[in-house]
Amino acid sequence: MSRSPGRKQENHKISRELFVLTYGALVAQLCKDYEKDEDVNACLDRMGYSIGIRLIDDFLARSAVKKCRSYSETADMIAQVAFKMYLGVTPSVSCSSATGNEFSLILDKNPLVDFVEELPAERASLCYCNLLCGVIRGALEMVHLAAEVTFLRDRLKGDAVTEIGITFLRKPEDRKHRR
Amino acid sequence: MSRSPGRKQENHKISRELFVLTYGALVAQLCKDYEKDEDVNACLDRMGYSIGIRLIDDFLARSAVKKCRSYSETADMIAQVAFKMYLGVTPSVSCSSATGNEFSLILDKNPLVDFVEELPAERASLCYCNLLCGVIRGALEMVHLAAEVTFLRDRLKGDAVTEIGITFLRKPEDRKHRR
Repeated sequence: MSRSPGRKQENHKISRELFVLTYGALVAQLCKDYEKDEDVNACLDRMGYSIGIRLIDDFLARSAVKKCRSYSETADMIAQVAFKMYLGVTPSVSCSSATGNEFSLILDKNPLVDFVEELPAERASLCYCNLLCGVIRGALEMVHLAAEVTFLRDRLKGDAVTEIGITFLRKPEDRKHRR
Repeated sequence: MSRSPGRKQENHKISRELFVLTYGALVAQLCKDYEKDEDVNACLDRMGYSIGIRLIDDFLARSAVKKCRSYSETADMIAQVAFKMYLGVTPSVSCSSATGNEFSLILDKNPLVDFVEELPAERASLCYCNLLCGVIRGALEMVHLAAEVTFLRDRLKGDAVTEIGITFLRKPEDRKHRR
C-alpha cells in the first residue's frame, strides 16, 4: 500500500517554528561547549559568516533584485527583502550617521527568540541571535561590501526593541574614486 | 530618517535555506564535540525530542487538524501536513507491516541535505537528519502515542531514497480494549 502525493513544484516556504527551535538547540549546545559568553558569541558570528557566504547565491537567485546603488538601498534590501524571505519579518531601517554608512535594523519583534523567555542570569553577555550578524556580514562580503554588524539593543536584555547595527566600511578605493 | 513598513499580519512563512544551513552548522558542531557517530546521532535525537514536545502545540494550533482515528491517519498527517508545514516537502507514506503499526515516510528529496554533498568518509555512521526522528517521536508522545522513529534508508549513504520508519508501540491498555 503506498499513497503518493501528486508531483508538485518544489516549495521553499516553510513555517519558521522548527527553525527557531533548532536555532535554540544550537545556542544551548554552544553554551555547553563554551564557558564564556564571548566565546559563544564569537562562534555564532563565525557560523553565521559561513552561512552568509553560501546563502547569498540563493538570495540573489530567488529575489532577482538589481544591484544596489547606495548603502541606503542595501540596508533597505536587507530589511525588506532578505529578512522577509528568511525570517518572515521586516525590520524598520534608520540611518544613524551623517556620513551615511551606519544603519540600524530595528525589530519590534524578533522571531528567533519566540520560544525564549529570558537569558539565564549567568549568561547576561550572551548575544543570543549573533548568528544573524555573521550571516549579514558574510553575505555582504560576497557582494564586495565590508561591514561591521553587531547587536546594539536586545529585547532579551530588557531593551524596548532589538537593534542590529550595520556599519559599512569604506574601502580605500572608494575614497580615491570620489576625489 | 526612519522608514517603517506598514503593520502587517505576522507571517510565519520563511524560506527554508537559512534553516537548512543553520542545521548544518549544528551537526558540524556536534561532530566537533563528539568523536563517535553514535553519540552525535543520539544527541540529535535527544535535541529533536525536546523540540518535538514543544512544536506539537504550534502544530495543533496552526494546522487545526482533527484527532486521528488510526495509526494510518496519523502517518498521513505527519507526511502531508507536518512535513509540508515545517520542511516544505510531502513524503509518500507506505504501511510496511501486516499488523498496521509500522509505516515509512519516503522522501525522494530531503531538503535538510540541500547543501550537503556527501558525508565525510570518517562519518559513515552519521544519521545526518536524526533530529527529525526525535522531533516526530517527541511530538507523537505529546499526543499519547509512543513510537520508535529511525532512518531506514538515506540518500546521503547511497540509498535511492530517504526513508524514515515509524513503529507505533501498542500500549498494554490497547490490547485490553480490543478484547
